Formats: sequence, structure tokens, C-alpha cells
Amino acid sequence: MNPSTDRYHFDTLQVVRRGPALHVTLNRPQARNAMTMAMVRELRSVLQRAQDSREIRVIVLRGAQGHFCAGADLGDLAQAQARAARPDDRDRAPEGSADPVAEVNARFGELCCAYAQTGLATVAALEGTVMGGGFGLACVVDVALAAQDVRFRLPETSLGVLPAQIAPFLVERIGHSQTRRLAVTGTAVDAAQALAIGLVHEVHPSDCLDAAIERVVHEILHAAPGAIASTKALLARARLAAPSALVNEAAAAFSRAARGPEGSEGMAAFMAGRKPHWAPQE
Amino acid sequence: MNPSTDRYHFDTLQVVRRGPALHVTLNRPQARNAMTMAMVRELRSVLQRAQDSREIRVIVLRGAQGHFCAGADLGDLAQAQARAARPDDRDRAPEGSADPVAEVNARFGELCCAYAQTGLATVAALEGTVMGGGFGLACVVDVALAAQDVRFRLPETSLGVLPAQIAPFLVERIGHSQTRRLAVTGTAVDAAQALAIGLVHEVHPSDCLDAAIERVVHEILHAAPGAIASTKALLARARLAAPSALVNEAAAAFSRAARGPEGSEGMAAFMAGRKPHWAPQE
Amino acid sequence: MNPSTDRYHFDTLQVVRRGPALHVTLNRPQARNAMTMAMVRELRSVLQRAQDSREIRVIVLRGAQGHFCAGADLGDLAQAQARAARPDDRDRAPEGSADPVAEVNARFGELCCAYAQTGLATVAALEGTVMGGGFGLACVVDVALAAQDVRFRLPETSLGVLPAQIAPFLVERIGHSQTRRLAVTGTAVDAAQALAIGLVHEVHPSDCLDAAIERVVHEILHAAPGAIASTKALLARARLAAPSALVNEAAAAFSRAARGPEGSEGMAAFMAGRKPHWAPQE
Repeated sequence: MNPSTDRYHFDTLQVVRRGPALHVTLNRPQARNAMTMAMVRELRSVLQRAQDSREIRVIVLRGAQGHFCAGADLGDLAQAQARAARPDDRDRAPEGSADPVAEVNARFGELCCAYAQTGLATVAALEGTVMGGGFGLACVVDVALAAQDVRFRLPETSLGVLPAQIAPFLVERIGHSQTRRLAVTGTAVDAAQALAIGLVHEVHPSDCLDAAIERVVHEILHAAPGAIASTKALLARARLAAPSALVNEAAAAFSRAARGPEGSEGMAAFMAGRKPHWAPQE
Repeated sequence: MNPSTDRYHFDTLQVVRRGPALHVTLNRPQARNAMTMAMVRELRSVLQRAQDSREIRVIVLRGAQGHFCAGADLGDLAQAQARAARPDDRDRAPEGSADPVAEVNARFGELCCAYAQTGLATVAALEGTVMGGGFGLACVVDVALAAQDVRFRLPETSLGVLPAQIAPFLVERIGHSQTRRLAVTGTAVDAAQALAIGLVHEVHPSDCLDAAIERVVHEILHAAPGAIASTKALLARARLAAPSALVNEAAAAFSRAARGPEGSEGMAAFMAGRKPHWAPQE
Repeated sequence: MNPSTDRYHFDTLQVVRRGPALHVTLNRPQARNAMTMAMVRELRSVLQRAQDSREIRVIVLRGAQGHFCAGADLGDLAQAQARAARPDDRDRAPEGSADPVAEVNARFGELCCAYAQTGLATVAALEGTVMGGGFGLACVVDVALAAQDVRFRLPETSLGVLPAQIAPFLVERIGHSQTRRLAVTGTAVDAAQALAIGLVHEVHPSDCLDAAIERVVHEILHAAPGAIASTKALLARARLAAPSALVNEAAAAFSRAARGPEGSEGMAAFMAGRKPHWAPQE
């Protein structure tokens, strides 16, 4: 096995490791990579394996064949609705849940939370259709890169349902006001608008998206992995707390980092005018 | 009575129903539609009637004759200040309040909350002067459309007072930082800047504003009314809660919608390639 | 002593009063004004003196010789790390702290909170390098003006540490999503991007920055000082509370202002078509 390029086997994902970056491609192109329960499980599994590994520092999410993700696969939802309508079938429901629809929905929410809370750095490369659950997944990553052909939309309310699990992550990314507007109107957002409202951080021509991913991964690898994880944890708290309430907690986190191996190496490298050991050495 | 075009009678408002949309025009053009206590009462009353009706799904707020709203009518404030300065007059204060100034202010705050919390979809068409309380009203709606001549300003601090009741809604719309800047400097914001900071969602030439309102109302009517209401309620929670704390609540709301009449109809319509019954059928 | 132009004496700051505006210049140009513990103490001291004075209404922060601030001075941090590594030296630590690194960090956090919470109006003029702690300081002021050569960066994670104390203020200014991206990637932000993401409120050519400062200070002086202080206090609450929970508190704050000397003067001046006494009278 090539030590720096592993391939993993999944049904709904294509997963390739290139050094410290794990490239995860949603791989149901026949359905514009719509998310099934199987895909939700595999996305959680691949994240868990990445977190457990000692080599992986960045996860890059992308969709196969020009679309990111068309949202929840309605087939799964229809099945759950059917199970919910037949109470005598309940024990056959995979989760044994009293409400299979809520169950399926909550599983997807837990997936979003897992990616939002991971200490690993996360990047999404967004092309073509980005709808519903795919829109949510685009909002949980640290860096969102888009191709010029990207098109975001929240179709939920036009289908009689809610953008439920993704709501908190849209609010985190684009704020309460823009989220509300997009959910109420169901209007589409193109690349330029997405950049203007902060839905994506960069827009590139489609044939430059690979280069942009590579550059961002390279930038991220200059940051210490433990420092990234601690920073992300602190920022999650900072969104919902008064600044003065965080002074001591932030100071403790800073001190742990500064006095730990990363802080020592970072300072030593800076003083010596060299790169720290975690950074690309070219 | 024309079943799809009703007129209601108010002193300070012009109210016209066109099918499922209620067009509410602040109608004190001699004072650039400055808000009196009577207008506050009538705005609450018209909202209540719209919510109680079974036909109305969208409220469109606008100002008569080229201005949206110049803020609180200072005559009402001066009267309240005078009442507050004459304690022996207290029993004659309409609200019987120990503090008529706080009372008048709180009534306006409750108006803002009522519009912010309504399950109906809300749109504002913003032209000319949008100041103080009018600025706040512009921030409580789901969709804010502006004409190119719009001009926003917070004059409160230059008058020795606070943008008090509107502060939370400005923070929701444009964030803490921009709100603080605009309140501290009292600087004016034109249409281009308003779009750039997310204060409005679209800007149009004045003579295209009607068409933009019509298009947005049309978009909104494709969304199921109950789904809009549930989404808005969830988003209000999402602004102030950690995402992981909302998973079960969001799943329950999703399930209620998906298993209810709107979700069933939405799924059936989608599967059949037709529009759901709540959508415009053209 | 010139009654309208005082000079104060500090080691790390240059402080000049021009009428009601206190111009505070970080003055360690040999280190691009990197922040030492001495500078942290002096910045707190100058704020306290400004708050205690009856004349000062605006503080303008700037850096000497073309850079705002390169962040924490690493010499101080290295000393604290060394003290932390020698437990037998603890009693000699200036703060007598069990963790000198956390101590130094918390002092800087308290500085940020003090500037964020002051009732005085605050302006920053940002040029050249704005990194780390300097980036944080740029985010605590009410108005951020930038020169076209400004360059922001969060180098912390590349040094193995966290942007700890500044995290809450970055979230307040640019939101959770942009903060997370900038901390994880350590990427630089130029003036145009800074304006686009709301990191600064205005961008000017370097030779126009002085005029912009003067204009903004002039604008601010039209607002009543007490009204500015009350508004800032209310806005800090509004970021973290549901709007409906603030109605009574906001009404009480409004009434205090309206019935107090500023509100009375503001209303009287408005009615008389003159400027209130606190405003520049030209």
C-alpha cells in the first residue's frame, strides 16, 4: 500500500487520502449525490476513521461529476413516511424508533454536528447543485470554495417541510436574516451572490477549483493540528457567550497550547527562522 | 365585495388585500409616515386580523408617497414626556402607566416583536426616508426590497435617546458591529451600502419596485404556509442556541411537517411532477 | 497647558488630546507596535483616565509609522513560558500566578473587554500590519477605518497557539464563519476583502486616512455621550438575547434617556431647529 495514498471502500462515497488530506467525494452522480441514510452512515464512519488516524489533518468534501449534493434522497424519506404510517411495522424499523421520520432527520442532524464539531480542518468544494441537506453540509465546513456554476437553493418549504437540521449551520454561516429570506422564498443563489452574503469564501472558474483546493489545504497544513482543534472549540463557544465570560477559559486554552509541544515547537521554529515540524517543508 | 380584493379601513394605514397578499401602506405622507401611537395600534390590529384570516399568507409593508417611515412621531413622544413631567396627571395617561415614556416605547417594541414572530411571510418595500423606528420595522420582515433612492439613518443618539426597541432587530439583520457603528455615528446608509451590509436583500430602480414585490410574493406563494411558520420559529431559536442542542427539536418539527397535510401533499405533488395545491397554478 | 490639547506621557503610547477626542498611538514602531505587557497596562490606564475625565468623548486608536500592530510581543510570551517552566521561580512571577502564560493572556483579554465595554465612542485607524492581538483590538472599536495598504492576519495557529482572547471580538465583527476560516487557514486579508466581510467599515487611500478620522469623530460628536454609552450597553445585550426578552429593559433605558438632560435638550434643540449643546456648533 502506498503509504501516502490510501483508498477506502464505501458504497456511496469515493475516499482517497493524499498525505494528510482525506478527499471524500459524495458518489451517487445518478442522483446528483442526493443523500441517503447509507451515505449519512458512511460520512460519519469516514469522519470517525479520520479522527482516529494520526495522519489525517484535513477533510475535503466534494460531489462526483459536477454537482455537490441535491439534498436528502426523497426515496428514503418516503420509506420513513410509509413506516410511520404503518404502526404495526414499527419493530421492523431499523432504529426501532417510534417516529421513523424524526429518526432519519435526527441522524442527518447528528452528521452535521459531527462535521461542525470535528477538530480536523474541513473544506468543501461546491459545484453545480447544492440544495437542502447539501446546502447544510456546505455550511458546516471551515472553508467553502465554489465553482462559478454553483447554485444553492432551499427547496424544503416548497415541499411542505423545513430546512430543519441545517438551520443552525446556515445561521452560523450567513446569519439569521439571509437564512430566513432563503428559506421563506426558496430563491436560488448563484456564485456571486453566495460570495456577497458570505455563503462561500472563494469563487473560482470550474477548471481552477482543483488548484484552489490544493492551495487552501497547503495553507491549512501550516497551522498546528492541535491549535486548529482548540480554536474551533473556542469559536463554537464564542458565538453564544459574552466576551468577558470567556476570558479565563480562553487564557487556559491559550496556556495549554503555548506550554504544550505545539506551542514550544512553534516558538522555537519562529525564533530559529525555520518552519515548524508540522508545516510543509518545501 | 370582490372576494380576492378587500379594502380595510384604518386612519393611519391603507390596507388592500390582493388574493393571499395583504398590502399595508403606512399612510401619513405629510409626516413621511412617522409612526404615531395610533399607527402602532393599527399595525398590530391589521397583523392580528391577517393571522386570524385563512386567506392571507404574505404581508407587504410600504410607505405612502415615496418614503417608508421617518421613525417615531415626535409629537407623541413630547406628549408622553409632558405627562411624565406632571405626576398629578398620571391617572389621565391613557395607559395608566407610572412611566408614559417607557410605556409608549414598549408598545412599539411589542409591535416589532409581533411582526418578527408572525408565522406569515413578510416583505418590506423600502423607499426614500427609513429612519429610527422605520429602520427597525425594515429589519423585522423576511424580505427587504429597496428602491435606489432609499436612505437609512439612526438619528436617536443625536437626539439624546437610544435606538432602543429596534436594536435587537438591527443586530439580527446586519450584526452587532454594523449596528453599533450606525448607532454611534448616526451616519446615513444609501442603497448600495445597504445591500453590501445585508440591510436589504435586493435593490431596484424605483419604477421596478412594484415588479420586484410581485415577483417575491409569487416566489413565497410556492412555499407551504405552515412550513414557513415552523421554519421561522425554528430560526429564531437557532440564532441563540448551540446547533447540537436543537437536533431533536428540529427533527420533531420536521417530522410534524413531513407527516402532516403539507408534507404529504408536497411529496405527492413532487412525485407526480405537479405543483402542490398551495402554489400558484399558472 | 493648552486647555484643548493635552499631552500625556507613556512609554509605549503616544497620547494627544484634541478637544473631546483622545488620539492614542501604539508607539513601538521598531516592532511594528507589537503589544508588550507594558503596553497592555498603559492602554488600560489611558482608557481609565479618559473615562474619568469629563471632556473626552472619543478615543482614536492608531499605530505609529504605518503599521497598526503586529500582535503580541513574543519576548513577553517567551519570558512567561520560561517562568512557567521553572516552578521554583514562581514567587518571583510579577503576578504571583500559578500559570504566568495564562495570566499574561488574560490581562490582554481584560484589555479587549475594557475597550469593548467602554461607554466612550471608539475608532481605530488601521494601516499596514494588523495581526493577532492587533487584529483583536481592531475588532473591539465602534468604527474601523482602514488604509488601502492594510493587511490582516491571524498567525496564531501557525505558531502552535490560539487566537484566544480575540476570538469573541472577531465573531462580533465578522461572524463565526469568517473567523473560523481565517483562524484555520491563517490567510491574509487585504483592504477590499476586509471591507467585503465587514472587518472594516471604510477604506481610504493612506493619505486620506487623517481626513476620514476627522470626519468620523465629527459625526460622533453630534451624538449625545450618555446616549452612546447606553446604546452600546444595550447592543451588547442584544447580541445574546431574544428580542422579546429585551422589550422592558429597552423601554426603561429609552425612558431614562428621554426624560434625562440629554433627551430634554435633544428634543428642545430639535423643536427649535438648533443644534443640541453637545454637538459641534459650526
